[in-house]
Amino acid sequence: MTGTSDADAPVPRTSPPIIAVDAMGGDNAPGEVVRGAVRAVRELGLRVLLVGRRTEIAAQLAEEGALRDVPVVHAEDTLAMDEGALASWRRPRSSAAVACRLIRRGDADALVSAGSTGGIVATSTVRLRTQPGVLRPALAVTLPTGPVPTIMVDAGANADAKPEMLVQFAHLGCAYAQTAFGVERPRVGVLNIGSEPGKGNKLIRRASELLAAEGSESMDFRGNIEGHDLMLGRVDVVVTDGHTGNVALKTIEGTAAFTMDAVRDALTSSTMAKAGAVLQRGALRRLRERFDSETYGGAALLGLNGTVVIAHGDSHPEGIAQACRLAHDLAGGRIGDQIRRRVPHRSAHWLHRRSEER
Amino acid sequence: MTGTSDADAPVPRTSPPIIAVDAMGGDNAPGEVVRGAVRAVRELGLRVLLVGRRTEIAAQLAEEGALRDVPVVHAEDTLAMDEGALASWRRPRSSAAVACRLIRRGDADALVSAGSTGGIVATSTVRLRTQPGVLRPALAVTLPTGPVPTIMVDAGANADAKPEMLVQFAHLGCAYAQTAFGVERPRVGVLNIGSEPGKGNKLIRRASELLAAEGSESMDFRGNIEGHDLMLGRVDVVVTDGHTGNVALKTIEGTAAFTMDAVRDALTSSTMAKAGAVLQRGALRRLRERFDSETYGGAALLGLNGTVVIAHGDSHPEGIAQACRLAHDLAGGRIGDQIRRRVPHRSAHWLHRRSEER
Repeated sequence: MTGTSDADAPVPRTSPPIIAVDAMGGDNAPGEVVRGAVRAVRELGLRVLLVGRRTEIAAQLAEEGALRDVPVVHAEDTLAMDEGALASWRRPRSSAAVACRLIRRGDADALVSAGSTGGIVATSTVRLRTQPGVLRPALAVTLPTGPVPTIMVDAGANADAKPEMLVQFAHLGCAYAQTAFGVERPRVGVLNIGSEPGKGNKLIRRASELLAAEGSESMDFRGNIEGHDLMLGRVDVVVTDGHTGNVALKTIEGTAAFTMDAVRDALTSSTMAKAGAVLQRGALRRLRERFDSETYGGAALLGLNGTVVIAHGDSHPEGIAQACRLAHDLAGGRIGDQIRRRVPHRSAHWLHRRSEER
Repeated sequence: MTGTSDADAPVPRTSPPIIAVDAMGGDNAPGEVVRGAVRAVRELGLRVLLVGRRTEIAAQLAEEGALRDVPVVHAEDTLAMDEGALASWRRPRSSAAVACRLIRRGDADALVSAGSTGGIVATSTVRLRTQPGVLRPALAVTLPTGPVPTIMVDAGANADAKPEMLVQFAHLGCAYAQTAFGVERPRVGVLNIGSEPGKGNKLIRRASELLAAEGSESMDFRGNIEGHDLMLGRVDVVVTDGHTGNVALKTIEGTAAFTMDAVRDALTSSTMAKAGAVLQRGALRRLRERFDSETYGGAALLGLNGTVVIAHGDSHPEGIAQACRLAHDLAGGRIGDQIRRRVPHRSAHWLHRRSEER
């Protein structure tokens, strides 16, 4: 590792947050990622810098006529899309690792990357570390429910979870709902296989008991949520382990795509239907956009000392720009402070220490 | 419990299987269930009998002009839809329990019920018992992939599973694929959160190792399947624990319904789109039917001494008739023999005994 200021605390900041975009992460890096960063600056007015191989980034910026608009921080190494968690240990000079270093130094507030989820989770967990009291960082995604999206935590960072971790995931999700959507006392549900209390596997039953016992002023625990409720917006935060959450998220994506394809096939299956489809193009295009993951900004890795947003691996410029907007909203809304207020109160260790102080 | 012949072995049968329909199970029982049984007899040519309160069933049969078409076996008690597993112990004279007794006596081959899944799983597990070597019965559902459906096991019978159980679920699913769809060497995948080997939680990683080590002639193990692959028909059988499987199944149902509703809204959002919708009514109706769970016949509980099919709780007559057809196909195809051939070969206990015989 280079640099001596890695352990420095982030500088308090009242100006708009600075987003460090990993220019080398994703299937379409660096070209489309750089274009997305330019779009975030020009169209959304965000403060963005790009991290990665300077010459490649500069060439793309020049093509966009944006050399003066987006600063570049050089990083000689990259994480490959098929590299997993161990990659983070091996590549201290990767663009993602260098972006984390900028955050630790206070030179940036957030990381946006379309790199492999496993690699970015591992890199940022090792380099940014968890906030005090947080057992494990968790991936939060928003589901396209309306009018306010439902946040699902954990969407895949922790394949094996413990009940206490699920309680923290609830608080992480609440901090997200409050910061990004202004929900003061979020409704929280646990993803389960039945609606009645006492249903489910050991992990979920125990987590439900713990959540019900919290009686929190900052959270409105609603008990079980089933798979068919996920898209109905019945709660603001859905809590689950990373295995179930990841399967549910990808099942939603796959089923929505499958259904839309089936609709398209049905609408072009006869001359009459084809004629109808022409009349409806606008309505269907807007619907497709609603399901398009690019509009949701990606997954937020919550609970670290710094905001991390992981965009889809195949993100195009609009997806990168939306991920930057999400990172801006979370970092600008000081989600870290929200989490700090919520999580220490739930930590047995902290409660113990506090009772000694009395 | 009444009757002394509960322990009798089922009588071998070459004639078409007899389906015992639980007339009292489901939100629309007994009326719609009786009408479904009549439809199964008249339109599908199946052998069906009805179990439940004789006077109520007879009244409905009379209304259908079907008193001579469907025999009735009286059962004075019923399981309520909100009764769970414990209900099975408390109600030996429930319609579901009496139907199980008919199967054990050899007077029927299969049970079809639209009662509560928890109650029917518990009742039939206690009363029919697992086949030799089978650790736990599992719920199998078919996903609407084409041309051959993908079977998912377990869809919710076992919220907490062990790796050895998942290996058996694979064999139960293969027996289903072979019996119902004629797939000789089914492709099997494990539902996981990544496509590469070594991904996933402890349960899935260990189950994958065991399945890969089997090198079975009767099964083509393909490794991991992700949530977005579920609807693509990449494998014939998807193996998962009951928690994840139930969440995935209900997420598919919820997302498909959500998407279809969104399509309907999009198609009626403007005058132009409305005009188009008129031209497309037929195509969209056929698509909706494809997603309609009534056409898939319900969930099969596999691994018991007798065929059990659990229809949707809100089944209408067509759903009950399709559940009867599935029960007919499974029992008539002797799925029990298939499971017997597959599962003992995988049981460590059985292997041990066999090596002693040599």
